[in-house]
Order: sequence, then structure tokens, then C-alpha cells
Amino acid sequence: MNPLRVAILGLGTIGTGVARLLLEHKELLAARAGRPVKLVAAADRDLSRDRGLDLSGVQLFDDAEKLLREAEADVVVELIGGYEPARSLVLAAIAQGRHVVTANKALIAKHGEEILAVAAKKGVAVLFEAAVGGGIPILKALREGLAANRITSVIGILNGTCNFILTRMEETGEDFASALREAQARGYAEADPSLDVDGVDAAHKLAILAAMAFGARLNFAGVHTEGIARVTPIDMEHARELGYRIKLLAVARPHKQAIEMRVHPALVPLSSPLAEVRDSYNAVMVVGDFVEKTMFYGRGAGERPTASAVVADILDIARTNGAGLAPPMGFVESERRAIPDLPMADVETEYYIRLMVRDKPGVIAAVTGILGDHRISLEALVQKERHATRAVPVVMLTHTTREGNLQAAVARIAHLPDVVEEPLILRVERV
Amino acid sequence: MNPLRVAILGLGTIGTGVARLLLEHKELLAARAGRPVKLVAAADRDLSRDRGLDLSGVQLFDDAEKLLREAEADVVVELIGGYEPARSLVLAAIAQGRHVVTANKALIAKHGEEILAVAAKKGVAVLFEAAVGGGIPILKALREGLAANRITSVIGILNGTCNFILTRMEETGEDFASALREAQARGYAEADPSLDVDGVDAAHKLAILAAMAFGARLNFAGVHTEGIARVTPIDMEHARELGYRIKLLAVARPHKQAIEMRVHPALVPLSSPLAEVRDSYNAVMVVGDFVEKTMFYGRGAGERPTASAVVADILDIARTNGAGLAPPMGFVESERRAIPDLPMADVETEYYIRLMVRDKPGVIAAVTGILGDHRISLEALVQKERHATRAVPVVMLTHTTREGNLQAAVARIAHLPDVVEEPLILRVERV
Repeated sequence: MNPLRVAILGLGTIGTGVARLLLEHKELLAARAGRPVKLVAAADRDLSRDRGLDLSGVQLFDDAEKLLREAEADVVVELIGGYEPARSLVLAAIAQGRHVVTANKALIAKHGEEILAVAAKKGVAVLFEAAVGGGIPILKALREGLAANRITSVIGILNGTCNFILTRMEETGEDFASALREAQARGYAEADPSLDVDGVDAAHKLAILAAMAFGARLNFAGVHTEGIARVTPIDMEHARELGYRIKLLAVARPHKQAIEMRVHPALVPLSSPLAEVRDSYNAVMVVGDFVEKTMFYGRGAGERPTASAVVADILDIARTNGAGLAPPMGFVESERRAIPDLPMADVETEYYIRLMVRDKPGVIAAVTGILGDHRISLEALVQKERHATRAVPVVMLTHTTREGNLQAAVARIAHLPDVVEEPLILRVERV
Repeated sequence: MNPLRVAILGLGTIGTGVARLLLEHKELLAARAGRPVKLVAAADRDLSRDRGLDLSGVQLFDDAEKLLREAEADVVVELIGGYEPARSLVLAAIAQGRHVVTANKALIAKHGEEILAVAAKKGVAVLFEAAVGGGIPILKALREGLAANRITSVIGILNGTCNFILTRMEETGEDFASALREAQARGYAEADPSLDVDGVDAAHKLAILAAMAFGARLNFAGVHTEGIARVTPIDMEHARELGYRIKLLAVARPHKQAIEMRVHPALVPLSSPLAEVRDSYNAVMVVGDFVEKTMFYGRGAGERPTASAVVADILDIARTNGAGLAPPMGFVESERRAIPDLPMADVETEYYIRLMVRDKPGVIAAVTGILGDHRISLEALVQKERHATRAVPVVMLTHTTREGNLQAAVARIAHLPDVVEEPLILRVERV
């Protein structure tokens, strides 16, 4: 059979991994695809760097547009990242009738609808397994393995950097800043870590998962996003004593008229399989009406795991020639349901509230009085320390309540004279 | 587009679940498959029982052979179970040019090669996702999602009945017999539980996983199989204190000339994601040379989860018409590598040994002397109780050693005059 000809745009970490996999596993891939899969071309601005690859027989370009003009490829693999020129290059490849594989979550989260619509018209495939969950085949699971189900929730640990930092804070007792430095030293976090620690990267991935899982419109702007920077060792310790662990969770649930999508640090019960996801691992829990609870776990990033997912997409195209691939739900015109996002004020869950208070008579009574005014009842209230002058932590767990009520109550509590810093609110997810 | 016409053989628990799913999710399935998926016929010896299904419009037969002769179906779903008549019916359906979906692990483990070879010649698909791991899409993950990898190990908790019993023993302190009765009372174990508790069911599934993962020849007879009946609350307690939990594991690893395949109770570290798989849940950990460690978790049995997997296979056929589906590795002629099984004596791992000894001077010295003779070194030795007359447990953890050496040493230890019952050997798996 004809070989499938592959061109890679971008020979950074992931691009190098994909090239390495295609070269090292040539026979294995041919056997599994039923035809040879051949790396024919690659483009990168810096071709001088030694990548430890034997690229003889591969046409090399220092200009991606030139590659698209001159190389003969059936599949173009976009591994440049970011919005531009990635978007333009992908659209150009589609216009040439080529299939596209990408690991670019930002591109898909922002421009996925445009790209998929153009690809559908042109009759080519656009696959992006590596954009969510690194090596974990979670998009294939939603598209195909769990396709018989109405999905009722998707809850993931989708950012390995945050999970490494939170695991480290829990295990060593160090604070966020120190754990972040360790993550940077190990290469798990960028010099500018904001996309990771502010939750934006996880929000990109959640928007893609929700669109797939619920056949909903892709809606990155509809994801409520909070980062992990305000979590302290005090919270780690209280959570553990109450039977929980703190994780950056990405949560999506369909409601009648809206999709709930939120990324924030949350308490998960120690007995949950998600509580045991440590270090830079990712996991996605998917609940379906027939399959019930499932979880998919693995490396969320890195050269080799990401290459595994990119090449799985290439193999899907090699086997099918791009035909008969399951449509990515929620992206193609026919599947689109214009479901608005659920306002955060309408989310209902349990809450962890940590206050720093001056330990004076009447403080706790004032706090619980305000919660009562807003019809919020407490499951637990913990004040472990007493101190004459220094502020001490007071931690509360509420029963299920509406976020709007909780925020209104906490805004009033924050103004009490003996509450000395902004209260920290974390949600509790019994997953 | 033409509807895909589906016929079900066997309306027991799973067959009823599949029919229910096809009827309840008609619109959803049509959208995801790109064509209607229509239940046209079903056969069961007992058609009088009320299954809570509206089967109007479905041709009903009390004879599966008659269904094959008279019904017009594109896909035949075999849910009768067992070897015969399941095998003959599946072969007959293939001979008619029909695609086959089955949940029958015994059939595939024993007759998979014959069935797949005939299907390949006839150009029809035979899919069996539900045969392993219930609702977990693990075969699709091996076939497609992780297809870019050379798989280096597959380690699973594949039998929900055993996992329920072991979880119960650990949590309540009750013994095997009592936990088994509870499993039977809840419908998790059959009246004759031997296929489950002796490890045979897990061995069927492991043989299928290993063939898929390693492109090895299907070899159910090559699986070393031990059940869980000899595990006691004493072992649960010692394991926990040493930092482990006891699980029935199914382990497969490729070696240069052989495939290691074994099913037995084993100690897994409490920090392993497999340690947190509780109750009747299943999980499969797959390690690949690029993707590294992954785990797939979910319900291993039950009407609705199994139906989810069966219908996922049906949707794959509906999308592709049976063409371009990834070949099930190791089953088709071209992939077959006649790799023999690794003799159990050549397996190398760490071991847990529990003796019941009379607490006399010199017993421990005699035991450790024998271990030393066979060059087996100990990581831990625990004797918690002392008693003048009653036998007391002595638990040892070894460093890595060859199983042949260990068995030879333990056979000698068993003959020591103060060792009063057959020693229990469990393997330790650092997964």
C-alpha cells in the first residue's frame, strides 16, 4: 500500500519526539497501520541544533510556508504552538487538501470551530489527541470508546505543572512560591508560569473536553478560571485532617440549558481515585449514563508521551485515510448546540472557607451569623490555634449551597473588623 | 445513509442492557455513527420473561440459528457466553458475511485465533471490547490510542468479584469465606464462584490483553494462574503495615524469547494507583516506551457498563462499515509471532512469604539459613506475636529473586518440623 507521507512543522521538544518516534518505530507503525508511515519533511527556524536524530532522507525547511508549498505530504503535523502562524499554516494545509494533526490546545480552544468547519468542507481530518491529557488517549475515549453514553460529567486534573506544585506543597509543607521554584528547576514550569498556575492551560483543555463530551459549542470564554497561587500549607493541612486533598480540578457538567465549566483548586476526598494522581501526572474522570464512572490516567506532558498521542492520530489517518473517523462532537456544524455557559453564581456545591481572624470573643458568632443569614449551614468548623495578638486560621466546610449565596456571605464576612485578609474559598468535589 | 442493522443473540443481563441502550439512545447513536443503528432482531430461548423493554419492531426468535437464517442483519452480537453454541453461531454469522461483536472472553481466549482468521478471510470485523475490563475501552486503547508504542507491561485488576472480596476483607477484617458470601449476596459472585476466585476469568482476559499488546500469539494455556482463597486477614494486616495492599493482579511482560503471563494475588504499594482500585472496579495499567505509565479505570462488569462497550464496537462498525478498523494485534495471521510463555520458574520479582510456626528457639535461624542457601536475601522479617503453644505467623519480604530459587527454598522450609502449615507465597509488584 502507498506510504502515508508526514510533514512536521516545528522541531521543538514535541516535534523532535514525534520525529524520533516515527523513525525508531518504523516497522511497528507500518504493521499497525497496514501501510508505511514515512516522515518526508520537517520545518524549523533553527535547523542547526543537534536533536540526536538521523534526518537523512527527510526534506528540511527553515520556513514552514515553504514546506507547505514544496513538500509532498498527506498529513501536516503542526507543533509550533500558539495562535499565529499556527492557525494560518493549518488553514493553508487544509486548503491544500491535507489532513492535519496538532498538539496545540490554545489553537483548538480558540479557533477549533473555524478550523474544523473548513476541514469538514474540504473533507480532510483534523485530529488533536495530544492537545488534552498528553499521552492519555482521552479524546479517542470520548469520541469512540464511550460514544454509546450520554456523558454526565467530566472532571480532570489537566495541568501537570499545578499538580506537581500541589503534590510538592502537600508532601514537603513548603509554600506555593517555593514549590513553583522547584517545578521550574525541574523543567515542569516555564520561566513565566502564569498560563499554568493561573489555570488557563487547564481551561483550554476543559473547553475542548466539554465540547467533545456534550456535543456543546466550543466555548473557552465560558470557563470560570481560578489559579492555585492562593493555596497555602495551612489549607493543605486542614484539608488532609478533614479527609481531603487539594487538586486543581477542571469540572464540566451539562445542565438543561447550559454547560457548567470551571477550573479551580478544589478539595477531593482522599478515597477518590483523583486524590492519588500525584506529581506531574494527569487524569480525567468521565461519568456516562451507561458506563458509570471511568478514569483515564497518564503523563500529561513531555516529549515522549505527547509524541505517543500525536502518532496515534497519524495512525488513525493512515488506517482510514481520514474517512470514517468519528466526528469530533460539538465541533462540526451538524452537532453544534448553542448552549450557553452556566453562570458561576448558579453552581451548587460544598465549600471550604479559610479565614484569618483576630482571636477575639464574638468573631465566630459574627461569621456563622452571616452564613445563617444566607441560609448556608456548616458541616465543620475548625479553629486549631489560639493567639492573643497574631491572626489565626479558621476553616469551615459548608453543606451544598449556591455559589451566589456563598459569595454574598463571604463578601460580608471579609468586611468584619477582625477578619484580616481576603478569605480563601475552595470548592469541594465528591468525585 | 443506510441504517446499520443489529441482531442480538442472547437476551440475558448483557443482551438486555445492549437492547436497552440501542433503544434509549437511538438519536444519540445515529448522530455519533453518522447513520441510524437499528435493533432488528433478537434471539433467546426464554422470550416470555419481562425485560422492561419495548421490543415492538424487533423480530424475536427463540432459536439463534433460526435468527441467523431468517433475519437480515449487518452485525450479529453474540451474548450467549460459553464455548458452544457461541463458537458455532459466531462462525456461521461470519460465513454469512456478517460482522460480529461479542462480550465472550472465554470464547475469544480459547477460539480467538480460529475466529479472527476466518473473519479476516471473509473480510468482516470481529470486535470484543466488552470481553476485557467491562465498560473500560482498554482494547481500543491498546489497538489505537497507544498504537505508537512498544508496550513493555500490562498489569490489571481484571476481576471485579475478587477485587470486591479483597477490598471487603481489608476493610472489615473478615475472612475469605465470609467476604465471598457477601459478594454472592450482592450478586457480584456466582453460586459457583470458582471461575472468578480461582483466577481463570482474569486469565482469559490477560491472554487477550497480552496478544493485543505484544502482537503475541493468543495463549490462554500459557497463563500461570493462582486464586485468592488462601489470602487471610493476617496477610491483609501485615501487607498494610509493610506499606502494601493485596490485589488479584494479572501481569504480562514481553521478554526476548517469551511472554510472561501470570494471574495471582500480589502486594502492590499503597502509593500505586492500582492500590486505590476498590470494590468491583477494574483497572489496567499499561506502560509503553513512549507514553510511559497509563491507567484505565472503570466498572469491570454489569449490565450497563458492559452494554456501553458492546455498543462502542457496534458504532465502530457503523462508522467504518468494518473497513479500516485497527487489526487486533496478535490475532491475525500476519501479526502472529509464535512466542512461547515464560516458565514461571524464570520470573523474577520480590516475594512475601507467610509461615505459621511454633515459636521455638532456632526456627527463624533455620528458615533464614535455607533462604541464604538459595541466595535469597530479606528486606524485612516480621514476627509480631509470641505464644508458647499456638503457631504464630512469621512474615518475610525478599529482595528480587528468581521464582525457581524461591520455590525450592520454600519447599525445604515447608518441611521444617516447626512450620505447621503450607507457607503462603505472594508476589510483590512495584507498579
